[in-house]
Amino acid sequence: MKNRRNNWPGINQLSAPVVDQLVADAVDLEILISRSTNGSRIIDAGLKSLGSVEAGRRIAEICMAGLGHVTIVPSDITDMNFHIVHVETEHPVLSCLGSQYAGWSLKYDAEKKFRALGSGPARALAAKEPLFEELGYHDQFDRTCLIVETSNLPPDGLLDKVSHDCNVSPDSLTVILTPTGSMAGVTQIAARVVEVALHKAHEMKFDLDSILSAEGSTPLPPPTDNGLLAMGRTNDTILFAGSVSMRVDCGDDAARQLAESMPSCNSRDYGKPFAQVFKDYHYEFFEIDPMLFSPAQVTVHEVSTGHTFTGGAMDYGLLCKSFFG
Amino acid sequence: MKNRRNNWPGINQLSAPVVDQLVADAVDLEILISRSTNGSRIIDAGLKSLGSVEAGRRIAEICMAGLGHVTIVPSDITDMNFHIVHVETEHPVLSCLGSQYAGWSLKYDAEKKFRALGSGPARALAAKEPLFEELGYHDQFDRTCLIVETSNLPPDGLLDKVSHDCNVSPDSLTVILTPTGSMAGVTQIAARVVEVALHKAHEMKFDLDSILSAEGSTPLPPPTDNGLLAMGRTNDTILFAGSVSMRVDCGDDAARQLAESMPSCNSRDYGKPFAQVFKDYHYEFFEIDPMLFSPAQVTVHEVSTGHTFTGGAMDYGLLCKSFFG
Amino acid sequence: MKNRRNNWPGINQLSAPVVDQLVADAVDLEILISRSTNGSRIIDAGLKSLGSVEAGRRIAEICMAGLGHVTIVPSDITDMNFHIVHVETEHPVLSCLGSQYAGWSLKYDAEKKFRALGSGPARALAAKEPLFEELGYHDQFDRTCLIVETSNLPPDGLLDKVSHDCNVSPDSLTVILTPTGSMAGVTQIAARVVEVALHKAHEMKFDLDSILSAEGSTPLPPPTDNGLLAMGRTNDTILFAGSVSMRVDCGDDAARQLAESMPSCNSRDYGKPFAQVFKDYHYEFFEIDPMLFSPAQVTVHEVSTGHTFTGGAMDYGLLCKSFFG
Repeated sequence: MKNRRNNWPGINQLSAPVVDQLVADAVDLEILISRSTNGSRIIDAGLKSLGSVEAGRRIAEICMAGLGHVTIVPSDITDMNFHIVHVETEHPVLSCLGSQYAGWSLKYDAEKKFRALGSGPARALAAKEPLFEELGYHDQFDRTCLIVETSNLPPDGLLDKVSHDCNVSPDSLTVILTPTGSMAGVTQIAARVVEVALHKAHEMKFDLDSILSAEGSTPLPPPTDNGLLAMGRTNDTILFAGSVSMRVDCGDDAARQLAESMPSCNSRDYGKPFAQVFKDYHYEFFEIDPMLFSPAQVTVHEVSTGHTFTGGAMDYGLLCKSFFG
Repeated sequence: MKNRRNNWPGINQLSAPVVDQLVADAVDLEILISRSTNGSRIIDAGLKSLGSVEAGRRIAEICMAGLGHVTIVPSDITDMNFHIVHVETEHPVLSCLGSQYAGWSLKYDAEKKFRALGSGPARALAAKEPLFEELGYHDQFDRTCLIVETSNLPPDGLLDKVSHDCNVSPDSLTVILTPTGSMAGVTQIAARVVEVALHKAHEMKFDLDSILSAEGSTPLPPPTDNGLLAMGRTNDTILFAGSVSMRVDCGDDAARQLAESMPSCNSRDYGKPFAQVFKDYHYEFFEIDPMLFSPAQVTVHEVSTGHTFTGGAMDYGLLCKSFFG
Repeated sequence: MKNRRNNWPGINQLSAPVVDQLVADAVDLEILISRSTNGSRIIDAGLKSLGSVEAGRRIAEICMAGLGHVTIVPSDITDMNFHIVHVETEHPVLSCLGSQYAGWSLKYDAEKKFRALGSGPARALAAKEPLFEELGYHDQFDRTCLIVETSNLPPDGLLDKVSHDCNVSPDSLTVILTPTGSMAGVTQIAARVVEVALHKAHEMKFDLDSILSAEGSTPLPPPTDNGLLAMGRTNDTILFAGSVSMRVDCGDDAARQLAESMPSCNSRDYGKPFAQVFKDYHYEFFEIDPMLFSPAQVTVHEVSTGHTFTGGAMDYGLLCKSFFG
């Protein structure tokens, strides 16, 4: 098995030019660039700006620290004119868990109450989460970027705190804001299809070092200003029609087990749109089975034996119920 | 509703580097670059040159003034090995109506008779069409590009007139020539699938400001030197198998109305290959129902409610009759 | 007919920047760069390195000397979560036969026995094969690149010989090594789907000058360390599910003949996985019908008449037997 962790590149340095390109193309991408009073750069992708699918695609690549490649392609599945978000990474553990996973809990109560989850390369500078100790990864760089799924501007005090935790000056911090249901928002969340698989593999205590590369696809949900609807759809696209394939080096038994156990249909809460699941638990998020959050279909290629294992299945009926029902 | 017109960028400046890149890659793209006697740059994409699908793809992006993204992808529809032209734009009104639409009627009779329709960013400098007053857009720049669907070289006198109308010197004008049925030609015309939808929306007097973004796909027609066959196929691909989705901000009623009324099947002339329609009207173009020119299938996402509306359907049987029959 | 050979560009100059970009992105691509003792640059794409699909995609573009465009797209065919390698070239004869075809037989016995086939732009400098006389092409440049499908490092003596044959200094030679079943390997071999069609056309003595452009697709085989399995799958993907379309200028009769005669199903050896064919001939490669090596499905567009001809068919059952059976 090839442990690549000693080789892991600095993800904040890697992602910096991708952020600069996003800023340079702001007009075409329908995003707004500004500075907070403390000097941090704010990228508005769907609050006062329109945001766009292409902005969301680029933000997804920033979430993956430049180590993932995201494309949007048309699809023939059903007659609903779907577009598919396709994600590919040669560095699944670092790009998905070390960067894209929304694992940084951001709270600020002084000026105004603000609650959100942060994702992106800034997490690896702050390294606030136990996950980074597990990964054995702690990045250092003089500028950084944090992506926040929110419909509100973060207070200056929070920006100060984030830059302090990341050990960069406030004006070296870029924060990208995407409301859940905006065009940029649904795109960058759907682009988490591989990250969801990696996170589930981690929850299943699968040996992450044996995951060599991964790719995944999921339909792009229709955008909506309704936050609950948006949250439902961005989950449902992955649960009902997300497909992930991984190349692993772990032996056939572990590979088969991974393919069979990972798909969402294994969860007790599988079988209805996520908004309904959430409602049925009286909107208590932590009552929901954490094992629900998985792709619908998983394919695992074991590279030393050359064998392929699959689990799960697409359910376009449930997907259409969620998207259009 | 977010009126973005105040923000519209200068499309001639935006498209200039895309034109330069086309010229730089002329050998790979199988196009020929020359200068007319009055100094204008002539890009031959299918007259004496071979032209190519990739040249057509790039020309389509120039037609959209750099504000649209065009890709070619393989498709599984039918067993005829189709390739699909996919178009995406975050600026549908400006890129499609303000640039890509072939709305500039070019006539010149002095040296030799020449008739053609011009498209591309030059239209927004000349602003000869009433449409530009409606759009409230008039661009200014010191160089420009015009795309002409023709099998003939335009006379110098016409090039002088165009550069004069655009207020640029003749040597700052680039004219791209594509015969209808050449590889570059069928590609750049198929890539008008979203423009056709925008034009129909305009004809339907739909509020253009509420169209936030759009994308569309249509099969690439087989090339042919037969001009009538080529005209038929480039229309039929969109009428029978073109699919457009738009994100709008206009309320559910207008969105449903748009999706249901736009598709080509609503036209009295729908139901046979376009070459036959044209023949049945004794080749009198203006006898044809203008409402025929629409995509086969339309999907409209209303972003504030999150609802999706669809209309029309693909007809691959008619498409194959047109392409191969 | 437009004979483009007088216009053919220098493929070693064209491909040099693509090689440089591969080297620049080595970390993301999971490849290793080193120098042999005689100074040649060695790119390890799957020996001690992991290699990657994206590395394989880029290597395929280098094999085609920068004159082919390779993309990886998700597919809806079957429920096995296939990804499709898609190849497009406006210069099919030069990029496929003049560069990508693995026609240079590399043998070296002095230090250690080494046998392999070389492909890529270096072939056109050495021009050891009779094919180059037929093509009337012989390139000259001061640096070059050779791609070798192997699991072993080539001996220094062989590198000296190759650079001597190419008339470049040893430190101006780059050699890219890809084991057959590595991720980079299966990708760059699958990307030979159009080259296989061009080679077959040449074997069929079809007039190559009349092939104007070509594109093709084939599913990406699952990687495996088992060399025989890997050889079988990389052949089978093309034989059972490779699809190529060409635009030709040769008249309808020759176009129909090409489409009907080319597909793999015309071979006496068609009908079982390649590993089985090979075994049934007791691993005597040259016993296998050379006409077997063809795409499953061929589409030919005659551009002057506008007619389309097809032959062959996909067989996903046989493909799945090869990939997963």
